Amino acid sequence: MKLAVLGSGSWGSALSVHFGRLGFEVFQWCREGEVIEEINKRRENTLFLPGVIYPETVRATSRVSEAVEGADYVLSVIPTQHTSSFWKDNRALLEDKPLICASKGIEVESLRTLSQIYREVFGSSDNYFVLSGPTFALEVAKGLPAAAVISNLSSSRAFKVVEELNSKSFRFYASDDVLGVELGGALKNVIAIATGISDGMGLGNNARAALITRGLHEIKRLGKAIGAREETFYGLSGLGDLVLTCTGDLSRNRQFGLSIGRGEGGVNGKFVVEGVYTVKAAVKLSKKFSIEMPITEAVYRIVYEGSSPKEVMEELLSRPVKEESL
Amino acid sequence: MKLAVLGSGSWGSALSVHFGRLGFEVFQWCREGEVIEEINKRRENTLFLPGVIYPETVRATSRVSEAVEGADYVLSVIPTQHTSSFWKDNRALLEDKPLICASKGIEVESLRTLSQIYREVFGSSDNYFVLSGPTFALEVAKGLPAAAVISNLSSSRAFKVVEELNSKSFRFYASDDVLGVELGGALKNVIAIATGISDGMGLGNNARAALITRGLHEIKRLGKAIGAREETFYGLSGLGDLVLTCTGDLSRNRQFGLSIGRGEGGVNGKFVVEGVYTVKAAVKLSKKFSIEMPITEAVYRIVYEGSSPKEVMEELLSRPVKEESL
Repeated sequence: MKLAVLGSGSWGSALSVHFGRLGFEVFQWCREGEVIEEINKRRENTLFLPGVIYPETVRATSRVSEAVEGADYVLSVIPTQHTSSFWKDNRALLEDKPLICASKGIEVESLRTLSQIYREVFGSSDNYFVLSGPTFALEVAKGLPAAAVISNLSSSRAFKVVEELNSKSFRFYASDDVLGVELGGALKNVIAIATGISDGMGLGNNARAALITRGLHEIKRLGKAIGAREETFYGLSGLGDLVLTCTGDLSRNRQFGLSIGRGEGGVNGKFVVEGVYTVKAAVKLSKKFSIEMPITEAVYRIVYEGSSPKEVMEELLSRPVKEESL
Repeated sequence: MKLAVLGSGSWGSALSVHFGRLGFEVFQWCREGEVIEEINKRRENTLFLPGVIYPETVRATSRVSEAVEGADYVLSVIPTQHTSSFWKDNRALLEDKPLICASKGIEVESLRTLSQIYREVFGSSDNYFVLSGPTFALEVAKGLPAAAVISNLSSSRAFKVVEELNSKSFRFYASDDVLGVELGGALKNVIAIATGISDGMGLGNNARAALITRGLHEIKRLGKAIGAREETFYGLSGLGDLVLTCTGDLSRNRQFGLSIGRGEGGVNGKFVVEGVYTVKAAVKLSKKFSIEMPITEAVYRIVYEGSSPKEVMEELLSRPVKEESL
């Protein structure tokens, strides 16, 4: 079985390492020349996945055509805001292959999810799969156990991919709710910023657990309005990923929130965290579909309008509500 | 407003401190003479809630009759396995007062929840309320923000209590699914042991997030079979409390699991953790109602049958399942 992995970031690299270790023949496309050289010569990607040794089954290339040539599956792990142009630029190379998208996010400019972009670029969704769940790249790269969802509009197609990619260390479950799976993975980054802010302010674990619970429900309400199925948000790609991102310190969205909460002003590190884009898209979508999303809105006000985290969080945590709206 | 708090443990003490600080007149019944003296003379309970100063509004007593005399509400925070005998012993003193139970667990011997015990002891559930949610005692005692559910079979009665006890720092939501609220609070302790074991073994955050997600669904399946409502398990008293207990190091059930996972053999500390009782009850209930509960069963085999955590967790994390059963 031959896989193409498109993207040199930590998640694309972790997937390359994981499937390479399983014995798949993996060709990883990377934008950066130095990353390619390092992977091929030294079996490492110190820029994006330091400390992990690549198996011999993985090769890196600068040419998309070389990566996807003869591939049974293409794993697309391009940064969300650049995925549309990447797919368009490589349309002819990608259109006939099953493509598994492992990026998470919503395109801010158009408010489209990645499956919606795919459909517009390629004209059909038959070959489109999304892979999403609670998966820190570094842990998957190290071979620690993980589970995620693979979704396609047809559950039999999803099942087939699950069977072919499944392993003991990284288990997949099939789903046919593509929209639900991708929305859970995208919107959870906003809640991760919120809980990061709360933790950074020292508000404690009780407040964090309440934010996660209420956060899942506002994600779910928006998701249902857009057309996803409610139960998907209670699965690995919804609740599972949300819990991981809100409580695990490997999450960059969480780290971004923590730095705001500590009064360090939201340091982004090397790259802008995806939640900073997603919160913008989510607020627009919540208005479009008339869904109340108080936590998402609180994050937006802090990140984009310069509101005081203290005031916004206090307001949020003392909203006059009597019944749990689930 | 006058409150009686029955119990001297950390949660009873935190509730006493919290409501005392709000200006309620609180009378806390404690079994231990030295605790009573310390609370009344030094405004501290160093045995169960060290580092927290009691407000002047709280008094402690050794006599249940004195504590409940004229109380508007009785908060029952007695260890679960002793609650039945305590209520029976004090039946005459308690029967006409609204009682809010803040203990969590299932009576192992009879497989009864606390609301079922109450009904048997007092003959009616009208005056029975349960308070449950993601609430580490120490954080509530310190005045950090928290939210929980108060439930009574009548939602209007639940609403009334919510209104009377609500505050900015500790918010309550009303529910009429008493069974769902108490089952979430009880069964989550078993999953907390499981994730503690997994974390103690170094299996990582991805595995933990998967266990929490799958754990919630087995709790929910059992709860539905017993007669609770599904959506309750997605609220603060279900998901919220589960996330808190599985990710917060103040959880004793989690600490117990961690010590097993690290190969330290499950040190219980001063007291047996509630989950050790609950897992026994849960396995019996799962058989009674024919519900598959693989995580709960794994914990049972490790805690009671001496199975190797490594083998059991490996088996659990590599079960051949293709579709998420939600």
